[in-house]
Amino acid sequence: MNPNMKAIIFDVYGTLFDVYSITSKCEELYPGNGEKMSTLWRKKQLEYAFLCQLMDKYRSFLSITRSSLKYALNELQLLYNEESEKILLEAYKQLSPFPEVESVLQQLQNKKKLVVFSNGSHDMLEPLVKTSTLSPYIDDIISIDDVKQYKPTPASYLHALRTLGYEKEEILFVSSNGWDIIGATNFGFKTAWVNRKNLPLDELDTLPHFMFRDLSGMLK
Amino acid sequence: MNPNMKAIIFDVYGTLFDVYSITSKCEELYPGNGEKMSTLWRKKQLEYAFLCQLMDKYRSFLSITRSSLKYALNELQLLYNEESEKILLEAYKQLSPFPEVESVLQQLQNKKKLVVFSNGSHDMLEPLVKTSTLSPYIDDIISIDDVKQYKPTPASYLHALRTLGYEKEEILFVSSNGWDIIGATNFGFKTAWVNRKNLPLDELDTLPHFMFRDLSGMLK
Repeated sequence: MNPNMKAIIFDVYGTLFDVYSITSKCEELYPGNGEKMSTLWRKKQLEYAFLCQLMDKYRSFLSITRSSLKYALNELQLLYNEESEKILLEAYKQLSPFPEVESVLQQLQNKKKLVVFSNGSHDMLEPLVKTSTLSPYIDDIISIDDVKQYKPTPASYLHALRTLGYEKEEILFVSSNGWDIIGATNFGFKTAWVNRKNLPLDELDTLPHFMFRDLSGMLK
Repeated sequence: MNPNMKAIIFDVYGTLFDVYSITSKCEELYPGNGEKMSTLWRKKQLEYAFLCQLMDKYRSFLSITRSSLKYALNELQLLYNEESEKILLEAYKQLSPFPEVESVLQQLQNKKKLVVFSNGSHDMLEPLVKTSTLSPYIDDIISIDDVKQYKPTPASYLHALRTLGYEKEEILFVSSNGWDIIGATNFGFKTAWVNRKNLPLDELDTLPHFMFRDLSGMLK
């Protein structure tokens, strides 16, 4: 990695933590529906965040995560009550990190400043990060909730840049979400796409500077 | 329908015309892949339109439709060249109307002003609408391309309102796309959701005023 890089910004959901690790909790509550449910929940969560941003009607990611959960349960015609909703939302604060993440962060620590930056609101991010094994390696938790502008808007990335206090060219932006990488590259960050699903590059003339299959590619 | 309603705005893709009618052309070129391909193409087309809007980097819907087609072919690992790309993009200008649409428009004609309003650019919309059987019933074709603000932004719906020249309460907004209905309702239009897939209502506290299974519900 370029020695001029002083800080690394990591996206959270899908990049450090596996949003589909919630599948087992979904399966436990709704046997036979875990996978369909977690997939639809995530799909709607992203759609709702984008829609709220496009309509200029901000709602926190926690509120959006709750709404998209309800929608997913309705579409799959699964019954729920306050209790099951609470269990699932709590589980979203205990997602599992991807297997290689802790070791990679450990090796980068003390060499670079390591921060996370997410569409998640602090009431979701803090419990998730602080109770995880990754906590000792994370120097700061930055949320778009402070400016109420969702990624991939330029305003959201500007918030991360300002909070960090480094120059743009001193920062590497890391995400596994294609739309996040497009947004961050468009903003002017140096970007690394963690292409966990081995997908083709997007066709919006906004290419990431680096591409890895998982985070361990960053160490090479 | 409320007799004070003077005009009806119809969304185009998915509402009057079936975007999945392109499946047969996809299947012809890529046997065994038609359905997967048309589904992924549409999914990426919407994602790219939203991303460009969120990044404030406008690209026309024709350009986005081309990019999303390329992406879909890449993800499905299907080979293409300029010729096959051209055939598929041309086919997007010849989508089929849903079966009930012509008869419904015929019955509404002369009672209300009937216009279409779409994220599509004029170079896609004009050939589609004007060569279709619906053409005699459509009084105007309005595109967000004139203001370069995609639905569901408030600015896009404002453009339709201004172009029509009626009062908001004199207009009924009709779409089968949930995100479009949310956006139009949020803007302040009276809305009718054509819920062709029998999906549950979205959970964003923005409910349509009417809901029909197909357009013929409007005649009751």
